Amino acid sequence: MPPMNFCSDCGASLVLQVPEGDNRLRHVCVSCGGIHYQNPKIVVGCIPEWEDQILLCRRAIEPRRGFWTLPAGFMETGETAQAGAARETLEEAEARVEVGGLYACFSLSHVDQVYLLFRSRLLDLDFGPGSESLEVRLFKPGEIPWNEMAFFVIQETLEGYFKDRAKGQYPLRSGEIRRVSEKPGDYRITYL
Amino acid sequence: MPPMNFCSDCGASLVLQVPEGDNRLRHVCVSCGGIHYQNPKIVVGCIPEWEDQILLCRRAIEPRRGFWTLPAGFMETGETAQAGAARETLEEAEARVEVGGLYACFSLSHVDQVYLLFRSRLLDLDFGPGSESLEVRLFKPGEIPWNEMAFFVIQETLEGYFKDRAKGQYPLRSGEIRRVSEKPGDYRITYL
Repeated sequence: MPPMNFCSDCGASLVLQVPEGDNRLRHVCVSCGGIHYQNPKIVVGCIPEWEDQILLCRRAIEPRRGFWTLPAGFMETGETAQAGAARETLEEAEARVEVGGLYACFSLSHVDQVYLLFRSRLLDLDFGPGSESLEVRLFKPGEIPWNEMAFFVIQETLEGYFKDRAKGQYPLRSGEIRRVSEKPGDYRITYL
Repeated sequence: MPPMNFCSDCGASLVLQVPEGDNRLRHVCVSCGGIHYQNPKIVVGCIPEWEDQILLCRRAIEPRRGFWTLPAGFMETGETAQAGAARETLEEAEARVEVGGLYACFSLSHVDQVYLLFRSRLLDLDFGPGSESLEVRLFKPGEIPWNEMAFFVIQETLEGYFKDRAKGQYPLRSGEIRRVSEKPGDYRITYL
């Protein structure tokens, strides 16, 4: 979350107080009285499928440069979650997809994010690394670079996905991912 | 979205420009260079069930004061979507629920919101109007005040819900609600 010192509307100072009718501390402007809420953000992404393969991107940017992930990023204003997932896939993997059903919905309260990941059908093989990717390629189930995954939420989603694919059923995976300690990779997933 | 004139970090002026490596206009600080993103917000809520009835709240606040809705509101930082849905139900209906599976995920891009609505089990009948509700009560399927619903997204969700309940199956309802015109109530739903 960005630092909240000044009112984005009038430029005066912000103070932390509980507005009338509210029950939590908010950043309130001492001059115009504007209340500046902070809320979780939505990360939208795709699991792009091609026959028995899925498409992954190797990250060209921090955090986790050089590690593999699904195409995903912050949902933008003015778009649907599905459109955002398709846009991220185009930007990061230069790939066109038909976005399908919601497959994963995970809250990551330690970073104030909610992930919405959609199954999707890759429309052609004309893909390549966008500016945020070093490399983009298709992986068969046995080829997934499990030890080089960028993010726990993506690794967990893909582990569930391949189990579901073996059964031919894809129930929504919904829950919470918590950071257990500051130790890298120390997370716990709970299905809710 | 709040007006974006001044940097919340250093208080200097913001200008609209496309930052390096980005592809859309952002509010960028002329002094510290901070980028102030604007993103959609998440509305979390419950469909609280008690035997064959569901719980609705009559709104005490604008917009749509006096009309009926499900307990729902903006997800807060530091919580999961499910915890937020339970919190809103406690605040608006003074009701305790066990939150179940995600039932509806709708993007409302005209207001930059994503709704996440969960089926949930009312734990007892000790409920009542919170400060944002005029009245809270249980409704049998035939009693739902369809002509007094506050929001199209809630009305559509409940119409789907009662159809699903008749079949005993509750697949995720996911899609988009678009405002067709400025005429009140002129929305269109698309299942994606």
